Amino acid sequence: MDPVTSALVRLLGRHAADPPQGRVADYIPELAVANAEAFAMSMVSVHGHVYEAGDVEQSFTIQSVSKPFVYALVLADLGLDEVSRHIGFEPSGEPFNAISLEPGTGRPANALINAGAIVATSLIAGTPEESFTRIREGLSAFAGRTLEVDEQVYLSEAETGDRNRALGYLTLSQGVLGRSAQEATDIYFRQCALRVTATDVAIMAATLANMGVNPVTRKPVVDEAAVRTTLSVMATCGMYDNSGEWMVRVGLPAKSGVGGGIAAVLPGELGLGVFSPPLDARGNSVRGMAALQETSERLGLHMFTPPGVHRSPVSASSVEEDRLILALRGELDFVAAEGIGRHLQEMAATFPLTAVDLDVTDVTVVRPIAAELLQATGRDLLARGIRLIPSDREKVPEAEGSRDGDSSKD
Amino acid sequence: MDPVTSALVRLLGRHAADPPQGRVADYIPELAVANAEAFAMSMVSVHGHVYEAGDVEQSFTIQSVSKPFVYALVLADLGLDEVSRHIGFEPSGEPFNAISLEPGTGRPANALINAGAIVATSLIAGTPEESFTRIREGLSAFAGRTLEVDEQVYLSEAETGDRNRALGYLTLSQGVLGRSAQEATDIYFRQCALRVTATDVAIMAATLANMGVNPVTRKPVVDEAAVRTTLSVMATCGMYDNSGEWMVRVGLPAKSGVGGGIAAVLPGELGLGVFSPPLDARGNSVRGMAALQETSERLGLHMFTPPGVHRSPVSASSVEEDRLILALRGELDFVAAEGIGRHLQEMAATFPLTAVDLDVTDVTVVRPIAAELLQATGRDLLARGIRLIPSDREKVPEAEGSRDGDSSKD
Amino acid sequence: MDPVTSALVRLLGRHAADPPQGRVADYIPELAVANAEAFAMSMVSVHGHVYEAGDVEQSFTIQSVSKPFVYALVLADLGLDEVSRHIGFEPSGEPFNAISLEPGTGRPANALINAGAIVATSLIAGTPEESFTRIREGLSAFAGRTLEVDEQVYLSEAETGDRNRALGYLTLSQGVLGRSAQEATDIYFRQCALRVTATDVAIMAATLANMGVNPVTRKPVVDEAAVRTTLSVMATCGMYDNSGEWMVRVGLPAKSGVGGGIAAVLPGELGLGVFSPPLDARGNSVRGMAALQETSERLGLHMFTPPGVHRSPVSASSVEEDRLILALRGELDFVAAEGIGRHLQEMAATFPLTAVDLDVTDVTVVRPIAAELLQATGRDLLARGIRLIPSDREKVPEAEGSRDGDSSKD
Amino acid sequence: MDPVTSALVRLLGRHAADPPQGRVADYIPELAVANAEAFAMSMVSVHGHVYEAGDVEQSFTIQSVSKPFVYALVLADLGLDEVSRHIGFEPSGEPFNAISLEPGTGRPANALINAGAIVATSLIAGTPEESFTRIREGLSAFAGRTLEVDEQVYLSEAETGDRNRALGYLTLSQGVLGRSAQEATDIYFRQCALRVTATDVAIMAATLANMGVNPVTRKPVVDEAAVRTTLSVMATCGMYDNSGEWMVRVGLPAKSGVGGGIAAVLPGELGLGVFSPPLDARGNSVRGMAALQETSERLGLHMFTPPGVHRSPVSASSVEEDRLILALRGELDFVAAEGIGRHLQEMAATFPLTAVDLDVTDVTVVRPIAAELLQATGRDLLARGIRLIPSDREKVPEAEGSRDGDSSKD
Repeated sequence: MDPVTSALVRLLGRHAADPPQGRVADYIPELAVANAEAFAMSMVSVHGHVYEAGDVEQSFTIQSVSKPFVYALVLADLGLDEVSRHIGFEPSGEPFNAISLEPGTGRPANALINAGAIVATSLIAGTPEESFTRIREGLSAFAGRTLEVDEQVYLSEAETGDRNRALGYLTLSQGVLGRSAQEATDIYFRQCALRVTATDVAIMAATLANMGVNPVTRKPVVDEAAVRTTLSVMATCGMYDNSGEWMVRVGLPAKSGVGGGIAAVLPGELGLGVFSPPLDARGNSVRGMAALQETSERLGLHMFTPPGVHRSPVSASSVEEDRLILALRGELDFVAAEGIGRHLQEMAATFPLTAVDLDVTDVTVVRPIAAELLQATGRDLLARGIRLIPSDREKVPEAEGSRDGDSSKD
Repeated sequence: MDPVTSALVRLLGRHAADPPQGRVADYIPELAVANAEAFAMSMVSVHGHVYEAGDVEQSFTIQSVSKPFVYALVLADLGLDEVSRHIGFEPSGEPFNAISLEPGTGRPANALINAGAIVATSLIAGTPEESFTRIREGLSAFAGRTLEVDEQVYLSEAETGDRNRALGYLTLSQGVLGRSAQEATDIYFRQCALRVTATDVAIMAATLANMGVNPVTRKPVVDEAAVRTTLSVMATCGMYDNSGEWMVRVGLPAKSGVGGGIAAVLPGELGLGVFSPPLDARGNSVRGMAALQETSERLGLHMFTPPGVHRSPVSASSVEEDRLILALRGELDFVAAEGIGRHLQEMAATFPLTAVDLDVTDVTVVRPIAAELLQATGRDLLARGIRLIPSDREKVPEAEGSRDGDSSKD
Repeated sequence: MDPVTSALVRLLGRHAADPPQGRVADYIPELAVANAEAFAMSMVSVHGHVYEAGDVEQSFTIQSVSKPFVYALVLADLGLDEVSRHIGFEPSGEPFNAISLEPGTGRPANALINAGAIVATSLIAGTPEESFTRIREGLSAFAGRTLEVDEQVYLSEAETGDRNRALGYLTLSQGVLGRSAQEATDIYFRQCALRVTATDVAIMAATLANMGVNPVTRKPVVDEAAVRTTLSVMATCGMYDNSGEWMVRVGLPAKSGVGGGIAAVLPGELGLGVFSPPLDARGNSVRGMAALQETSERLGLHMFTPPGVHRSPVSASSVEEDRLILALRGELDFVAAEGIGRHLQEMAATFPLTAVDLDVTDVTVVRPIAAELLQATGRDLLARGIRLIPSDREKVPEAEGSRDGDSSKD
Repeated sequence: MDPVTSALVRLLGRHAADPPQGRVADYIPELAVANAEAFAMSMVSVHGHVYEAGDVEQSFTIQSVSKPFVYALVLADLGLDEVSRHIGFEPSGEPFNAISLEPGTGRPANALINAGAIVATSLIAGTPEESFTRIREGLSAFAGRTLEVDEQVYLSEAETGDRNRALGYLTLSQGVLGRSAQEATDIYFRQCALRVTATDVAIMAATLANMGVNPVTRKPVVDEAAVRTTLSVMATCGMYDNSGEWMVRVGLPAKSGVGGGIAAVLPGELGLGVFSPPLDARGNSVRGMAALQETSERLGLHMFTPPGVHRSPVSASSVEEDRLILALRGELDFVAAEGIGRHLQEMAATFPLTAVDLDVTDVTVVRPIAAELLQATGRDLLARGIRLIPSDREKVPEAEGSRDGDSSKD
């Protein structure tokens, strides 16, 4: 098991051991039957690497996690100017189903409260069927596979969704809804009933992290401008009336859904998807939030922990006979370590190496995840007869198999 | 004049030509006399380079621009846990002088509204004199020079500051103020009356961009955790009830003051300071905001335009006889171009070069500011007899003097 | 012309002369065609006397003036306990179409904002047709004649009433609506499209003033408890976010509608109906409000100007030969003067009188309307050969015809 | 014991037996020591009759009960126009210490929230000492005796009153406070610390009921216009965010204080004062509110239960030899029955009567309190040898002592 996966597995284990908190959504019977013990987390880098832990095969309905992605589709289709005539950008400071229409414009406060999400959905052009097809295909492109509607959930939501219908009529009366209230909410109910896994969500998030290009399929989904606006709104409004504290504590633009999923994005680096059905009073997955916060802390993912200006961790790289001399610098985070690992694999495949001298004198910080990744790379190299020798074993531990000595290698 | 400075000068010229809008603050006579035409912008990279344009010698009172920096000082002194018992993190969705105390905790909503700023000030320990000395020295460390109080402004603010005194008593009654209301507001009035220039503000912002180390003086001011929290709160609450749209349109954590100054931060890259006294109805510098928005758009500074994963723009660099072969990749933004320029200067000083072959095949995006910087570097090299030859002149234009021909050189 | 009618005619004249202000409602074309010059006022006492001035023959749609009366019907049908589970009693401090649902209960704040009115309408039992029939018959009983629906207005409202439909779905989702949102709003649109005249509105108001018994038809419409609750809610919530000032300045529980009508009630005394289509920004008839305020001031109708404790103005009444000696006391207001007039008519019909000595020594206040009524009574008596002689002509002027002389009497 | 007193005593007994609820105010130690069992109620008619029950000798600090009375003093001194430039009239829909300043004007929402009350206090002219003397003398005139300040409570309030000081500075900064914030709040703290009894409060309330004339001392305190405005504001804002429901359920303009007192007014009829220290979460006396509600229901005191139009209950009164024939009509409420009793006493003192024939054919409603009063009068008359004989004993029971002698009747 690779070290990232190991880290995720251990992290899930710790949180799964915590006494259960929160309550599975039960406003429709289809949600109430969710397995409260289910727990999964996936992480997908902008290189397209997928790391998974827990019940990643279990699917759940996407619900509000769909909101930023549909918003991105609308932005890509219509542009910011047109969309901003219909939906605002300000945090509402209120719960998810708040009725926050701006005085004057009548716009919903932002695209991540229900009112704004229904307006976003209504702006996707075409007949209702065409419109939903565009949404389903768009979200499928974000996820890299074809998503399917849970018809039972859709029907139940449609049956009980009077508050959302109210928001539809309200925004219609303000002149900001793009189609009839009944159509808009019906499409919205179907959109919310799409089934996803934690990995789907992580890939969707990674597509935003990768500026709109799905890092797994390599296919562009939305343009960079749409991503920028979407991430901006996720950063300030993504966690409802807790958005400010989430930014301070976790530092990842994110969006949760009552199905138990959460998507989180580290722009330029990675996407995360978690799944655990029990929700807190605000409707956020309790374990999901805790797992994301710990992941952010342990892996140094806070958006405002920039890696410093020397963005390449490799300050020098030269081959002398059968030794590679590699000098690193600055902060070693997840992406840095991943890049170093890749470089080492390539060099090992190209040159007949027996050792790598890793000069870490100029390394300032080593994130735990980077240390683990480097050790894993060390073990891989060792298996190929190449020893990875850090200049400072306090900073970067040597791969465990390497203690045996130079001579004993196979 | 270097290209960054040129860009700033041109930008100021464009905005200065716009018909004047907004109104100089006049709630105290000392502010009303400000020169409405004064206009300055400074940009400071995390390498410590200072670029200035306009009336950068003119000083003004720092006012609310002091808020995030004092908050950072308090966070550095007391830690997030203690500070979070006194001040919240959520946008208030209200004007600057709003009375947004959280039900239950009685905390001001965040540290960037007046109530929260007064509480932050009150938490700096010591006698009132010691406390103010800590604040003045702290802000001076952020600015890299000793800041002085404008006694006239201080006395006038103290005379008319009943609303702030109200906020002092209010937070005192909630048990979140750190000292008596009269002391806290008096220190706060002095803090707001510190005089700064646009360049001071830019260096202060760059210190946040550089994770708490003043990039000019190289002295640490606050720790990284304090910076992370401060930037998070600036991102969600910095522009009051316009914070969400500011994030979408400009994408730089920022803070304005009624003296006409605005600080903006691109984490990991640079700080910006602007100064223009006429304010809009919200109390933000009209020209200052417009100039920052254009700067962000033209220079590609939006926080959610990450430079992509290949963070070093140099994919290969080798010297063959008198030619340097340099391969670039990915997005070329301000910081990338600056780094490339520096590398070229070093190589030119070390090796007897006559030409640099710049392979830009793998370059995906070239920001305008990067193109300008590379051309400027080309001209510098040319003056030293070295021609800089891009592989694709559409992507990266060659320095203008270089067209004369290969033969004419040294 | 009787003195009350004269007073109303003069009052309308004064207000009609004012430069026109406000704007006729135009959200549907049927309202926009209203005659902006139309102006009418009617006053109906709890004795059933009807006084009219201006365009009382012109009808208009009742709109929100229907709200308190339908609320009274629901209270009469279901009782306060049941109704209070669906609709609250607090002023919302917000405009008429505010979405003021109480946290916790989900009840609309009160029955006079649209959300609460739609819920009230929804609680009238039966099929939609039966329910509307009950409403139409109930409001007709309040008015004392059969009211008819303006089908054009109804259809237009139904077509454009998305905000009201939103309120329907919203209250449905909170579990406080009594039937489907589409049915409830459809009945509500029909209710609002009932046509009334100023006199209809005045009789409806007088029915509330008379504790639920129509003072013209003498038929009971709703019980006293329903009236008490309805008047209480009109007093605190009747004029939306202006209810407090209205109580101070006018002191009459009231309700306006966008058709240009206003109903006002002086409990125990009289009902008022005014009609003038141009509305202010809040949706209240501009001239209607001004006319009501002046009426209240001139006639001493403020609810908190109680007539004092000696509620009968007659402290002594005795017949000595052909003279009636009548001693009055306390404040003489409209109702007092009306009662005195009635008493004098009865005495004149019973005894062979030639004079009435009116001892006003103990009278403390004489409202203008009371002075006019007494003069009118004096003229009536004079025509029958009976002179009415006030003890103090400064307090109560003698009827004008009476100056002709003592000698002319029989 | 007269029947009103008996009724009050029984009512207190019932409520005192209820399990204790609420909590004595303890924000200052002086209030926390209040006797939680103390319970008193007084009722004072506009005739000046005082009825008392319970611990009426126990005094307590007036606290917020002072607000409407000081507001009335300011209105009397300065007039509505001037006062309305400083304080609004709208319910704030918020708790007592809310910071409800109107956008635009900066006025506190109304005079019964703390902010408005402090402004009202600040508008009483003179030096601080003169101003407080005017307030103390004014409230003493309302109460009919000289009120004294509880110095301990005053000092404690002054020490801990930072929130009120905040409101002082806030209103000062808005330009609506009449003097310095420190002076205004100091006078306010003294005003709140005046000691009163339940009877004092009832007489104060009765002075409002009697249009500004103290019904016990017969001295005018404030003019009628001041009373009208004060009662209007009490009606819409007196019970904070519960004002609307209070109007529906109790129907008496009222004001409570954290000392445990409540004043309630039935305009034109009577004033009520209750005292019981344990408070609910809103700061209202729990038993006080329950006792007032029951009193209103049992005695028919709801403001919108007007006594009907025939305001004198006596339709005919004649003496035939030794019999008085008295015909009554309409609703017999407290005031009516009191007036009838008085009339009977006068007649009994003037004529040599042996019986009173009470014709109640035209009586529509008999409030319980009226029945009790009439029975009491019957017993009094019986003691003087005069039998009171109702025409309908179902409607009005005969005095109990009268059963002794069927035979003695004519």
